[in-house]
Amino acid sequence: MLLVAPCRERRELDQVVTEHHFEDFAVGQVFGSGRVRVDGDRMVAFAAEFDPQAFHLDPKEARHMFFQRLVASGWYTAALTMRLLVDSDLRPADGIIGLGFEELRWPQPVRPGDELHLHTEVLELRPSRSRPEHGLVKLRMTTRNRADEAVQVLVGTLLVGRRRS
Amino acid sequence: MLLVAPCRERRELDQVVTEHHFEDFAVGQVFGSGRVRVDGDRMVAFAAEFDPQAFHLDPKEARHMFFQRLVASGWYTAALTMRLLVDSDLRPADGIIGLGFEELRWPQPVRPGDELHLHTEVLELRPSRSRPEHGLVKLRMTTRNRADEAVQVLVGTLLVGRRRS
Repeated sequence: MLLVAPCRERRELDQVVTEHHFEDFAVGQVFGSGRVRVDGDRMVAFAAEFDPQAFHLDPKEARHMFFQRLVASGWYTAALTMRLLVDSDLRPADGIIGLGFEELRWPQPVRPGDELHLHTEVLELRPSRSRPEHGLVKLRMTTRNRADEAVQVLVGTLLVGRRRS
Repeated sequence: MLLVAPCRERRELDQVVTEHHFEDFAVGQVFGSGRVRVDGDRMVAFAAEFDPQAFHLDPKEARHMFFQRLVASGWYTAALTMRLLVDSDLRPADGIIGLGFEELRWPQPVRPGDELHLHTEVLELRPSRSRPEHGLVKLRMTTRNRADEAVQVLVGTLLVGRRRS
C-alpha cells in the first residue's frame, strides 16, 4: 500500500547526496517531506489493533465522548510521521536510529481525510562520547495538517554515523 | 486478532471498580498488564507500512547494519505498549487521553518471539487549571521483555475525569 506519495517539491535544501553523515548536518537546517492522506478505514483498523477505545473506533459513540468526534490514535499519527520521516530527504547514513525523545505531544487530533506533512529542524549537534564513530543529532519534528496546524510535536535525538575518512 | 491475552494475574491493586476517576489515583500506585507475544510477521508488516528500513524488514541485511539483527520499529513497541495499557487495569473514566510525553526511550530492541508486559507507576497528581472537571495523572510506563529488561520507557501525563458529585 502506498501511503506516502513521493512528492519532493518541498525540498528545502539543495541535496545531491543521498545519505547524510553527522558532518553534513548543521543547526537550523530544515527538511520537508512528502504528504500522506489519512485513510479513515486504515486509521480505525490501526486503533482496533493497538488502541481500541471508542473515540478512535466509532464515529457515533465518539460524539458523546471527550473529543466529540472520531479521531486517530496518537500512535497512528506517530507511525505516519515515521513514514514521512523515512521517505523525507533526511537520510542518515546508517538509517534513522532514535536514541530517545524528550517531547511528544499531539496539540490537535488527526481526523479521517486529513493530509499530513512533516517539518524537521536540526536543533543541536554533538559528538557521541560512547561511540566515537557516531554523532548525536537533535531534531524537532512537527507534523502538520493541511491548515498547517501542528498535530504532533516530537523532539528527539538520532544517532548518526560520522564520515569514514 | 487477539494480540493481548486477558491475563490479569498481575493485578496489584484490589480493584472492584472498572473505571478510575482522578480521585482514585495515588502517587506510587502500580498497575500491571497482560502479556503480548511479538509476532515476527506482524512486526515486519508494521515496519513495511510505517518504518521501512532494512534493519526492521530483512534479517539478512540487518546482520550487516547497526543492530546486527532484525529488530522491531520502536513505534511498533510503542503501539504494542498502548494495547497493553488499554487492556490493563488502569482504566481512566473518560478513556486514556494522553496530554503529552516528556520521555520516550527504547533501551533494548524488541525481537520476534519476545513477550512484553507493562509496568505502570503513578508519579504525580495535579488538578487541571484549564479543565476543572479533570485532573492530570503523570505516569511512568515501562515495557519489559521476558527477561524483565526495559524495552521502552515512556513518561507522560493523562487527562483523567474527576468524579461527578
